[in-house]
Amino acid sequence: MPKKPLEQLENHHSFGGTQLKYRHDSAVLDCPMTFSLFLPDTHKFPHPPLLWWLSGLSSTDDNFTHKAGAQRTAAELGIAILIPDTSPRGEHVADDPEYDLGQGAGFYLDATEAPWSEHYQMYRYLTEELSDLIKQHFTFSGKEAISGHSMGGHGALVIGLKNPTRFSSISAFAPILSPSQVPWGIRAFTNYLGKVNQISWKNWDASELIQAVTYQVPILIHQGRQDPFLAEQLDPAYFLSKTAPDYPLTYHLVDGYDHSYYFVASFIEAHLRFHAQHF
Amino acid sequence: MPKKPLEQLENHHSFGGTQLKYRHDSAVLDCPMTFSLFLPDTHKFPHPPLLWWLSGLSSTDDNFTHKAGAQRTAAELGIAILIPDTSPRGEHVADDPEYDLGQGAGFYLDATEAPWSEHYQMYRYLTEELSDLIKQHFTFSGKEAISGHSMGGHGALVIGLKNPTRFSSISAFAPILSPSQVPWGIRAFTNYLGKVNQISWKNWDASELIQAVTYQVPILIHQGRQDPFLAEQLDPAYFLSKTAPDYPLTYHLVDGYDHSYYFVASFIEAHLRFHAQHF
Repeated sequence: MPKKPLEQLENHHSFGGTQLKYRHDSAVLDCPMTFSLFLPDTHKFPHPPLLWWLSGLSSTDDNFTHKAGAQRTAAELGIAILIPDTSPRGEHVADDPEYDLGQGAGFYLDATEAPWSEHYQMYRYLTEELSDLIKQHFTFSGKEAISGHSMGGHGALVIGLKNPTRFSSISAFAPILSPSQVPWGIRAFTNYLGKVNQISWKNWDASELIQAVTYQVPILIHQGRQDPFLAEQLDPAYFLSKTAPDYPLTYHLVDGYDHSYYFVASFIEAHLRFHAQHF
Repeated sequence: MPKKPLEQLENHHSFGGTQLKYRHDSAVLDCPMTFSLFLPDTHKFPHPPLLWWLSGLSSTDDNFTHKAGAQRTAAELGIAILIPDTSPRGEHVADDPEYDLGQGAGFYLDATEAPWSEHYQMYRYLTEELSDLIKQHFTFSGKEAISGHSMGGHGALVIGLKNPTRFSSISAFAPILSPSQVPWGIRAFTNYLGKVNQISWKNWDASELIQAVTYQVPILIHQGRQDPFLAEQLDPAYFLSKTAPDYPLTYHLVDGYDHSYYFVASFIEAHLRFHAQHF
């Protein structure tokens, strides 16, 4: 199979590994996309397991790469980290003036409603196209896990729960746990999936998917108790009430922390060690 | 003494400590300034030693705060970190269209030449005004060290070497070690200090100050071998040739690393542990 072209934008030595950034043309999204990839020392770890990191509203792949400090522990444990962008991009791609819809707010689903359905196919892009692309260009162990922050925590839970034999563990920081119940999720789902079609919302809602699992993938969640979005937008209470008592879920509500990358950075090591246990 | 007003801009829980950002009106610089401050857990460390961090060309206090990942080790060791901005700021402050002169490029000296001398008094601002201000508002142990990156590495060495009884250790990442010998430094010193007054340049050049020390403050330097500025702008060879063989200098030229914050993040823990040994 001929390798699709990948344009390298950045290449930095980091903790003995390499922090990379690329651009490629996405057929699924019909636009150019960037992604970042951390590789641990390829001599020590020629076939690393792969952690997917999904970012939050208004982020690109740069926020996690610059601010989470994940490279240190990933280099130590020999974990590769793939960080995609959060939506299709470009002047020809539908958008909205608010930060919580359109570009930067793809919600990791496949939109069915115009004008969004033309480009907003993030689920298929991630699980098929980008997944195939990086496996053509880099070598991994075959083990995968998935994590994310806020909207990306929603994405990690949804993608992980929909693919329980693919991802050996799931984790999230301040995830939107019950999107069908909260303003961010209702606005996104109404636009991307349609108001009259609320049955389809259940396919993209972790609080619904967790009730229908056939295989229990271990989950780790950290929430900051001082997160200003906790009650209104993240709604952990609803998700927790829908999760079976015997589900292997570790849920930490940590005092003092907010919604920022200072919170993510403080606990990213714990998440990487959690995933390493399950690879 | 009445406390000067400080406006808090940010307050984030981070690794059990607090990442703060403030704005205040500087009398020395005659403009409003921001600075960031990391405090470890004040219950565990009510009187922490203070590390000054000076940033590089075009940076503000945010670059280090967001990207270096220093909070983790500082929280563990109980070290406070003060991160000032890199120059005076504002529409009424002299500037230059290039990144290496004017706003974002104060070079941590006291300018003597018009139009720069009106506001560009970063040495006096840091060592007197900002130093007094933070000690009015926060409690420290009295022990201080100083570090920085690129132009800020120059600043750390110059300020540390000029105040050898104040700072117990000095460190730097990719510092401009011989500013009088390289394009960045020659342009800055010509503008700020004057071309006809090159004798004054020696007061702001680590390669000169290291030859006149009366007390040998320990120094740790990391340089990336793949730093594109290494030979032309940083000139470690000249500095090393001027440093006494018995000087307590640890100089690491590390393979693979460049000039970025990925390099700083990879070795910031080693620098914090170095300073902790000397407090």
